[in-house]
Amino acid sequence: MGQTRRRAARPPAEAAPFRQTYNPFPPMGVLSAEQLEQIEAASFHILEQTGIEFISREALQMFHDAGAEVDFEAQRVRLHRDLARKLIATAPAQFTMHARNPAHHTIMGGGYMIFSMVSGPGYAYDIKRGRRTGSFAEYLNYVKLAQSFNVIHNIGGFIVENQDTHEDVRHLQLYQAQHVYADKCTNPSARGFNHANDAVEIAALVFAEQGGREWMLSHPVTLSVVNSNSPLRFDTPMVEGLLTYARAGQCVIVTPFTLAGAMAPITLAGALAQQNAEALAGIALTQLARPGVPVVYGGFTSNVDMQSGAPAFGTPEGALAALAGGQFARRYGLPYRGSNVASSKTPDAQSAYESMMALWPVMLAHTNYVLHAAGWLDGGLSAGLEKVIIDVEMLQMLDTFTRGIAVDESTLALDAIAEVGPGGHFFGTPHTMERFRTEFYRPLISDWQNYDNWLDGGALTAADRAHTKAQEVIAAYEQPPLDPAIGEALQAYVDRRTAEILNTEQ
Amino acid sequence: MGQTRRRAARPPAEAAPFRQTYNPFPPMGVLSAEQLEQIEAASFHILEQTGIEFISREALQMFHDAGAEVDFEAQRVRLHRDLARKLIATAPAQFTMHARNPAHHTIMGGGYMIFSMVSGPGYAYDIKRGRRTGSFAEYLNYVKLAQSFNVIHNIGGFIVENQDTHEDVRHLQLYQAQHVYADKCTNPSARGFNHANDAVEIAALVFAEQGGREWMLSHPVTLSVVNSNSPLRFDTPMVEGLLTYARAGQCVIVTPFTLAGAMAPITLAGALAQQNAEALAGIALTQLARPGVPVVYGGFTSNVDMQSGAPAFGTPEGALAALAGGQFARRYGLPYRGSNVASSKTPDAQSAYESMMALWPVMLAHTNYVLHAAGWLDGGLSAGLEKVIIDVEMLQMLDTFTRGIAVDESTLALDAIAEVGPGGHFFGTPHTMERFRTEFYRPLISDWQNYDNWLDGGALTAADRAHTKAQEVIAAYEQPPLDPAIGEALQAYVDRRTAEILNTEQ
Repeated sequence: MGQTRRRAARPPAEAAPFRQTYNPFPPMGVLSAEQLEQIEAASFHILEQTGIEFISREALQMFHDAGAEVDFEAQRVRLHRDLARKLIATAPAQFTMHARNPAHHTIMGGGYMIFSMVSGPGYAYDIKRGRRTGSFAEYLNYVKLAQSFNVIHNIGGFIVENQDTHEDVRHLQLYQAQHVYADKCTNPSARGFNHANDAVEIAALVFAEQGGREWMLSHPVTLSVVNSNSPLRFDTPMVEGLLTYARAGQCVIVTPFTLAGAMAPITLAGALAQQNAEALAGIALTQLARPGVPVVYGGFTSNVDMQSGAPAFGTPEGALAALAGGQFARRYGLPYRGSNVASSKTPDAQSAYESMMALWPVMLAHTNYVLHAAGWLDGGLSAGLEKVIIDVEMLQMLDTFTRGIAVDESTLALDAIAEVGPGGHFFGTPHTMERFRTEFYRPLISDWQNYDNWLDGGALTAADRAHTKAQEVIAAYEQPPLDPAIGEALQAYVDRRTAEILNTEQ
Repeated sequence: MGQTRRRAARPPAEAAPFRQTYNPFPPMGVLSAEQLEQIEAASFHILEQTGIEFISREALQMFHDAGAEVDFEAQRVRLHRDLARKLIATAPAQFTMHARNPAHHTIMGGGYMIFSMVSGPGYAYDIKRGRRTGSFAEYLNYVKLAQSFNVIHNIGGFIVENQDTHEDVRHLQLYQAQHVYADKCTNPSARGFNHANDAVEIAALVFAEQGGREWMLSHPVTLSVVNSNSPLRFDTPMVEGLLTYARAGQCVIVTPFTLAGAMAPITLAGALAQQNAEALAGIALTQLARPGVPVVYGGFTSNVDMQSGAPAFGTPEGALAALAGGQFARRYGLPYRGSNVASSKTPDAQSAYESMMALWPVMLAHTNYVLHAAGWLDGGLSAGLEKVIIDVEMLQMLDTFTRGIAVDESTLALDAIAEVGPGGHFFGTPHTMERFRTEFYRPLISDWQNYDNWLDGGALTAADRAHTKAQEVIAAYEQPPLDPAIGEALQAYVDRRTAEILNTEQ
């Protein structure tokens, strides 16, 4: 590792040039103005009456000093609505995420969307080998896919966990790989001080020339998800992660884990009230740590399967919650985070319709950061090789959709229509010939052949074709250039910290 | 045939009660007001300058008498924008479609949606047997599925063509079966006078008690698609179908067949201008035939695969066109027709994401009549058995989505949240227990098990489960009651007409 070649990475032939997806259409809401107020009032009631538990003496003290009602023994913060509103008011509505390759900078906010890889799975899945425990080798393949597709704007974090590495240093290995094998922004972990501080230190080495940690205070280069332990709790590792990143000027995505029927009320209105209370409390803490630090309002509310108690993803309830969450984020002038989720175990029709039940709302809600945009399977327990490709196809289609319809004299084509006239056809006309290569979206793996050709080709499913495509893209991957000095500095840091962490434990 | 049992049909256990889907959210547009005007102006230019070909002396005369500029030799109608606007103004914005079972009446217009089966395929496909020529036995299975699922509001027409019956009497066999094996509205064919007049005569027998043809003049019971032969032409059979249905007071859906790059300009703006010109001309003719007769603005614009020239379905371009078409329909105060289409040959991930690229826009566009809502595969060449089930799942999910979020004291659940408090869970609470059976959408075939259980169950895909589900629903199908006198009258009519048609041809 650390070796780099000075060649520019080339995207697969079917991929569009790097361009951040921008949704020009007005956002969709599913709550009326009155419903939104009712749910917000309920969330304020929760913040003021029940309060939020922070298992962190430091966080409790910060809230206390800011004027909140804090019960140190019960570790409970009760936050008046006026104080909550005042604290979150310093958070910016829009900011730029800086990648080590400036061509991969992205805007967070407004109609802009950032698509990021799945994060969190302990397993890898493909249709040939089934499910198996995640490894570093698997992880690298996913990083290569993420770097190769231009519609993936952020590499993500623990795409699949490198379980073949010692648990306490896995994060070091992954952080290093993200910067060496890719040049897009990353989503390192907020699981405790070590995960967060190592991510910031490593980023500071990557951005040493720009000014390192000092420069990063006003230039976010990492973004990290901080989940509440719903209901109404932030645990110690998550608070440490939040404070470490916020104090380093890095972006925090506060995401309540409000699965209706389990960690939140079974009714969506109640789950959303709880989501909003938890989100506001976490966002307030980022601004106490560093006023003005970039923070994102996260929504992850879905429902559980009431038969098994397991989360269900890509559901109509999840779609409604995703759109309602966007309404709250806009209400507070904050960027919004959503997800592309599914329950299916394999990249079949279910995985696709569940993902589309998530992705359309994600787009319609003006979701700015889309975590798990590619590769999520089995409720997030598996990273799916073919699912990455299928998701990329869907993301590229939605990206094309957001480009809208060009209307001008040339596209209205009145001359061509008059020339062709009734009963003719447009195949060979100059108007068609000038545009036929580029006018329409060209699919990555969708099969548009006729039935007989499809049959002759082996009657392959989309999953079959995606498997082949994934192998091809990984084989064609080219490592983006990296200053050798940075590569060496990263290696030295990882070696030193690995030794420290493992020796400390002996 | 003709035998009926006096038992009420029962839907599959997973199906919701019959309820017409209603979209309460504002419709989405993708064209700005200015773009809409530009495209409309282009369509008026086409109507006025190039004109539309009607291969029908009768239609030409009707346009001439109404004041249009008609070239009888070239069979060309040039329609001034003011006349076009005047003629379509008599069409109603909303009306009721009457089913022989009054519980299955449906509203056409506003936010209401009618989901109808696929129509037109010559082949049937399932994952066990592949593709084969359509037969009457296959057709009956699809009718049974359509009748069984409450989210299917209209049986449709030639779901799969009964190619084992003489071509000229196929329509009689299908029309009879639609009324005997189902009790929802139907979508008979507009392919010429015979197809249309037989549909009206058969419907008059079914609705004899209400008053037959006379009553039907003000009570639409059938709706039928009239396609233009794009570009800019209506052929003789389609004009005959249009006039026959319109004069009988039945609903006509005028749908230009504007596939961008082939029968329309490659640029969406031009294809939509042409679509609008053709739609307005056809709609105008319905109102000349019978002012005030129900008519629907149809949109079917998609693109072709510029490599093969074959239509491509479920594309981003199709999604944009579907939403733009809805803007035109609303501009003219007309109900709108769209489709659930896909190019995939088999019910894999592609079939699902393509359908979702069609269905979300269908819903967002306030599409009132959704043809091909269930069962479309392979660009409409095949009816897919498993695809019906997968589409029903998606339709039920979207239907659930349109029900929105209930916000009131009980759903806000503040007491439950206070009771559970930080770190607890909501599984056993009274608030959950009261609602856990009914609060969430319960899937038809989606698998929400954990990986090991899924693996132990055979690692089935959604297509596998859909195959089994289809067989179960067909086996459990119960024929809806039908007055034996009507059954006999239908049989007599079909026998007489079959003899007439086949003898005439000898």
